[in-house]
Amino acid sequence: MKARCVREEMTYTGEQLHSLWIYRTFGLEGDAIVWFAGPCAVSGEHLVDQVDAAANDYIKAARMMHFLVEQFHGDLNHAILRQRLLVCMAGEVLSDDVPGLSRVGDDLFFGEKKLSVSIATISPVSTLIHFAVNIDPTGAPVRACGLEELGVDPWRFAERLAAAYVGEAERMAKARCTVRSVP
Amino acid sequence: MKARCVREEMTYTGEQLHSLWIYRTFGLEGDAIVWFAGPCAVSGEHLVDQVDAAANDYIKAARMMHFLVEQFHGDLNHAILRQRLLVCMAGEVLSDDVPGLSRVGDDLFFGEKKLSVSIATISPVSTLIHFAVNIDPTGAPVRACGLEELGVDPWRFAERLAAAYVGEAERMAKARCTVRSVP
Amino acid sequence: MKARCVREEMTYTGEQLHSLWIYRTFGLEGDAIVWFAGPCAVSGEHLVDQVDAAANDYIKAARMMHFLVEQFHGDLNHAILRQRLLVCMAGEVLSDDVPGLSRVGDDLFFGEKKLSVSIATISPVSTLIHFAVNIDPTGAPVRACGLEELGVDPWRFAERLAAAYVGEAERMAKARCTVRSVP
Amino acid sequence: MKARCVREEMTYTGEQLHSLWIYRTFGLEGDAIVWFAGPCAVSGEHLVDQVDAAANDYIKAARMMHFLVEQFHGDLNHAILRQRLLVCMAGEVLSDDVPGLSRVGDDLFFGEKKLSVSIATISPVSTLIHFAVNIDPTGAPVRACGLEELGVDPWRFAERLAAAYVGEAERMAKARCTVRSVP
Amino acid sequence: MKARCVREEMTYTGEQLHSLWIYRTFGLEGDAIVWFAGPCAVSGEHLVDQVDAAANDYIKAARMMHFLVEQFHGDLNHAILRQRLLVCMAGEVLSDDVPGLSRVGDDLFFGEKKLSVSIATISPVSTLIHFAVNIDPTGAPVRACGLEELGVDPWRFAERLAAAYVGEAERMAKARCTVRSVP
Amino acid sequence: MKARCVREEMTYTGEQLHSLWIYRTFGLEGDAIVWFAGPCAVSGEHLVDQVDAAANDYIKAARMMHFLVEQFHGDLNHAILRQRLLVCMAGEVLSDDVPGLSRVGDDLFFGEKKLSVSIATISPVSTLIHFAVNIDPTGAPVRACGLEELGVDPWRFAERLAAAYVGEAERMAKARCTVRSVP
Repeated sequence: MKARCVREEMTYTGEQLHSLWIYRTFGLEGDAIVWFAGPCAVSGEHLVDQVDAAANDYIKAARMMHFLVEQFHGDLNHAILRQRLLVCMAGEVLSDDVPGLSRVGDDLFFGEKKLSVSIATISPVSTLIHFAVNIDPTGAPVRACGLEELGVDPWRFAERLAAAYVGEAERMAKARCTVRSVP
Repeated sequence: MKARCVREEMTYTGEQLHSLWIYRTFGLEGDAIVWFAGPCAVSGEHLVDQVDAAANDYIKAARMMHFLVEQFHGDLNHAILRQRLLVCMAGEVLSDDVPGLSRVGDDLFFGEKKLSVSIATISPVSTLIHFAVNIDPTGAPVRACGLEELGVDPWRFAERLAAAYVGEAERMAKARCTVRSVP
Repeated sequence: MKARCVREEMTYTGEQLHSLWIYRTFGLEGDAIVWFAGPCAVSGEHLVDQVDAAANDYIKAARMMHFLVEQFHGDLNHAILRQRLLVCMAGEVLSDDVPGLSRVGDDLFFGEKKLSVSIATISPVSTLIHFAVNIDPTGAPVRACGLEELGVDPWRFAERLAAAYVGEAERMAKARCTVRSVP
Repeated sequence: MKARCVREEMTYTGEQLHSLWIYRTFGLEGDAIVWFAGPCAVSGEHLVDQVDAAANDYIKAARMMHFLVEQFHGDLNHAILRQRLLVCMAGEVLSDDVPGLSRVGDDLFFGEKKLSVSIATISPVSTLIHFAVNIDPTGAPVRACGLEELGVDPWRFAERLAAAYVGEAERMAKARCTVRSVP
Repeated sequence: MKARCVREEMTYTGEQLHSLWIYRTFGLEGDAIVWFAGPCAVSGEHLVDQVDAAANDYIKAARMMHFLVEQFHGDLNHAILRQRLLVCMAGEVLSDDVPGLSRVGDDLFFGEKKLSVSIATISPVSTLIHFAVNIDPTGAPVRACGLEELGVDPWRFAERLAAAYVGEAERMAKARCTVRSVP
Repeated sequence: MKARCVREEMTYTGEQLHSLWIYRTFGLEGDAIVWFAGPCAVSGEHLVDQVDAAANDYIKAARMMHFLVEQFHGDLNHAILRQRLLVCMAGEVLSDDVPGLSRVGDDLFFGEKKLSVSIATISPVSTLIHFAVNIDPTGAPVRACGLEELGVDPWRFAERLAAAYVGEAERMAKARCTVRSVP
């Protein structure tokens, strides 16, 4: 699994949650996680979560650290499990510096303030995850906070999370091949 | 997903990691998590992890809180993802009371002391997880500690972890049915 | 599996055979069967059966009882098996009141008159079935009859069929989890 | 899908519910349905339904018409769907001659008397169904009746059911290849 | 698996690589291989291989023998394996007449000259392969040669390859149903 | 995918066709191909091909070059496709030195003499292939020849075939991740 830090700012609009976007944009072949910072503005047809879409909801924040993950094996249940694991691991990474975080499903909270957004889905050829942690939550439609306020360096956090996720993927792949079945 | 606390002490030998053991033993139909306390003594043919088996390793502790999870949908990759999620969630539950825990793959550590063991596998009809947290680690083949030493009530911990896992399973099932795919 | 009777008349055009249409329209999360009465008018690009499409066929009737089923697990073969089962069960429900019905694949007949239409397919996230029984077959491109002519109350029939299908789904889910494999 | 009528009497003990038994016994390659008449005596380790096994139940009848189906594609959910369809179709075939039959899951009843037994399961390489209809129910552990009492020729019934099942399999295979997906 | 030789010349543009195109165009139901001769001109949005698309590449030749294969079972890995097998088999068929051929992945070469193009992909309901061998390579963006130059009758070659592929599919289907699993 | 040449002679009895045998014997984690030379003697319960087993056949040769492949992703159809590809590739490698080879399914022939044996199957956690090419065919139950007679160095052949198979697996994995689907 490849990991790539993208230093140029980009606005996440939901259009990036598309099969082979990572390959076409960065030339990374195969399973990959990339991250970049920038505004978040997802609405209307780009909402993949139909609970949000049904509520005419939108996703917005002035600046977030965005993670995009594409993995070419598995179904929608794999996608959702991988997403929950990624969010848990974000909590693990952050909790070294920030006590008092909690996770509810695919959301991280600091007290009652929302820290992140996420969606997991499938394309015809892959599973995809978008996970983003507020740096500056200005504009969010709910009470929110960001890494800035928590005093966390977003790039260092991202680097550590991506490395942890890649390591976990490798350990799981190894476990897959060294376990026998039971009757 | 059903949850059942089993109050009678049982020794975990690895024979419980068997399809439909939960149904045959407790009458619970379908996806389920059960937990019980008791010694742990797994060796030889009952070792499912072939890394351990290859090393002539064994798993032993005087008393652990054992979790057995059987879910009837999915493959070995689902099993391993579910296991990692369960172990992460155990870390989340414990971290309210115990600072300084860390997770490496499917193991929890307190400092350098190992707190848990786990295996995920498949049967011909289901995915299965055994996850056990030391209460009293006496007899473990590595440096280990237990919930007793950490001042954590094992039953309260188990109840909270099982409830969290069942809740997560429900949230994921709902997410599965309310997300659209992307191109 | 959820069941919902929709009392307002709607024209079935084929556009309803779309993933998450039930969720977006009625707010039902997860596996569901809904039914409503109304005209049927499917043609051109909305024909999913390519045998019909190839023949420039169309589906039309003045008023039918429409069933839409969405289930979020399984492949196209599951979809077709579920459809055949649903049509068989419609035959079982009707045969209490109407002797002389027969089934050929996914079609019910009363003598030589066609009583129903059906299609099963998949979306990227689910399996989908449309099954509709004529109430008033006026306009059908083949010899047809309807529940009106047979003296069957369409709403009572629909209620019974939906309940039977939901019950069957539950029994099958239970059977799935209480059977062992064989060598 | 091949169909083979076996004229010699055989006792069904559950050992026949084994992958490739049809191939090894009759030389039929690939998907097949075979039928034969004979006693039924399944107990203990040969019970595949763990609900029966848990209840220390057994399956017994003096003479039944046995159907064994092996299909080499699909999972346990396919197996159970195929089984339900087969039992529905047995009802369809019988109802021409016998009014008053009913089906509950994978069981046929005549009034309150049980007419059939069935199990669907998987092997490592296939899905398997055993379905058997009493000819003479003597010895059954529940109130039961048989084709003899109902005045139905078991061989003619079997021939018609097998032909119908093979035809259905062919129609479904064709439907699988002539339907497009929906968004 | 059906095989159909199409005698009228057609330009392959990539639009033919579409689920059910064979059924809609030639009326062949189910798994099929068809072949026809004609120019090749694939570019832009019709490029399925994203390596080519990323390079702004195009596929062009004055006249090729085109093979289109649609099979309704399997995933993208099956599709790619089937493609490699088809290309290997083309090599086997040609090597009787043409010494010195070599294969690299899904490409055949005669010395350093490229003889063929191919892509394997999936649709929502099937796996699809396009494989084409130059008859007259004029216009190809790389050094290429064709069957004309090699003195091979393209129709006889196509007939033999299609027959071999259909035979292989049948042998594999039989092997699928006559092998047991291992522990 | 790992490749390992095993220099010590071993008799292939069929017991090596077992999940995780490669890992347990050689410590190779994950997808792997290993090869070794030695006698071949497979009979009775170790026959996996039920066509052979039904015929009371056996597999025997004085010395063969044996290839064992275990891959941890895929179903029985993948296994058989991979096997056919491996056998094709053996033909490609050999044909540089030996003209007049032919392949029928999973068998290589030199004229009418059989050169190889092969089986592909699945275990609960993997797909497995055994492919063996006669070095000295003495004892084979059919007309056979070997690499010795053909003047081919078995170790050099094996090295080249294994390298080609590993390379093909890598190219296919890359193709899997750089192709888009079609409608």
